[in-house]
Amino acid sequence: MKLTRAADYAIRGIIYMAMQPEGAIVVIPEIAREMCIPVGFLGRIFQSLNRAAIVISHRGKKGGYSLTRDPAQLTLKDVIEAVEGNISLNVCLDGYSNCERMAFCPTRKHLADIQNNLVAELEKYDFALLAREEKMARAGEKTP
Amino acid sequence: MKLTRAADYAIRGIIYMAMQPEGAIVVIPEIAREMCIPVGFLGRIFQSLNRAAIVISHRGKKGGYSLTRDPAQLTLKDVIEAVEGNISLNVCLDGYSNCERMAFCPTRKHLADIQNNLVAELEKYDFALLAREEKMARAGEKTP
Repeated sequence: MKLTRAADYAIRGIIYMAMQPEGAIVVIPEIAREMCIPVGFLGRIFQSLNRAAIVISHRGKKGGYSLTRDPAQLTLKDVIEAVEGNISLNVCLDGYSNCERMAFCPTRKHLADIQNNLVAELEKYDFALLAREEKMARAGEKTP
Repeated sequence: MKLTRAADYAIRGIIYMAMQPEGAIVVIPEIAREMCIPVGFLGRIFQSLNRAAIVISHRGKKGGYSLTRDPAQLTLKDVIEAVEGNISLNVCLDGYSNCERMAFCPTRKHLADIQNNLVAELEKYDFALLAREEKMARAGEKTP
């Protein structure tokens, strides 16, 4: 019950993107350096974010990635699900399970409630907020 | 961000234990059969539950496992943590991380809040409740 490393790095990468001016194209090595992420791994993560239409890739000399939407419209849930797939707290909640107990299991309903709460929590935090806080934290670090 | 199979089976196993009269000693093959769990895997899971002092093992001809406490004092959180270790939503919250960003990362604080909420949710459900509901669900199945 833990975020994967890929999801943790995806969150950091999108925070950095959201700190840039609207429409900015950013390259992977810059994001990796600024957010302390291994560059090769981050490249693969951004391919997932591209497939999920959270970023778009630009080819050529000035190529890189840009966000496809306003960071205020993008939440922790969106970025985690882009990398890990739909959040499901238990295997019986992923839509593919054929557990023998599914039809009557009372515990499954509680896990579904807990999951819905978790998803709602993750939707509370958008990347405009996270980027704003990251900027403030960095400014605080540089002028103690 | 999903329960392991071991945690899922541990929850089922403890529900079955909690359905029995106080102090009852139950054998693994019976729990496995009643709760649709592979018997070998369940044996290993109960060793973890034993180490976490949630069940105690009894040797001999009438050997097996019994609960160490009132099911009303045992929550989903306890049983999940016995099998998976302390719940930590991200690697930076497990107490062992040395992430370079830890001292100032604003996102870590939000993940900690989300985690605290998740833990509080898991603490809401005790095994007296889950066992009572399981009994009702089974009775409903048998007398439709």
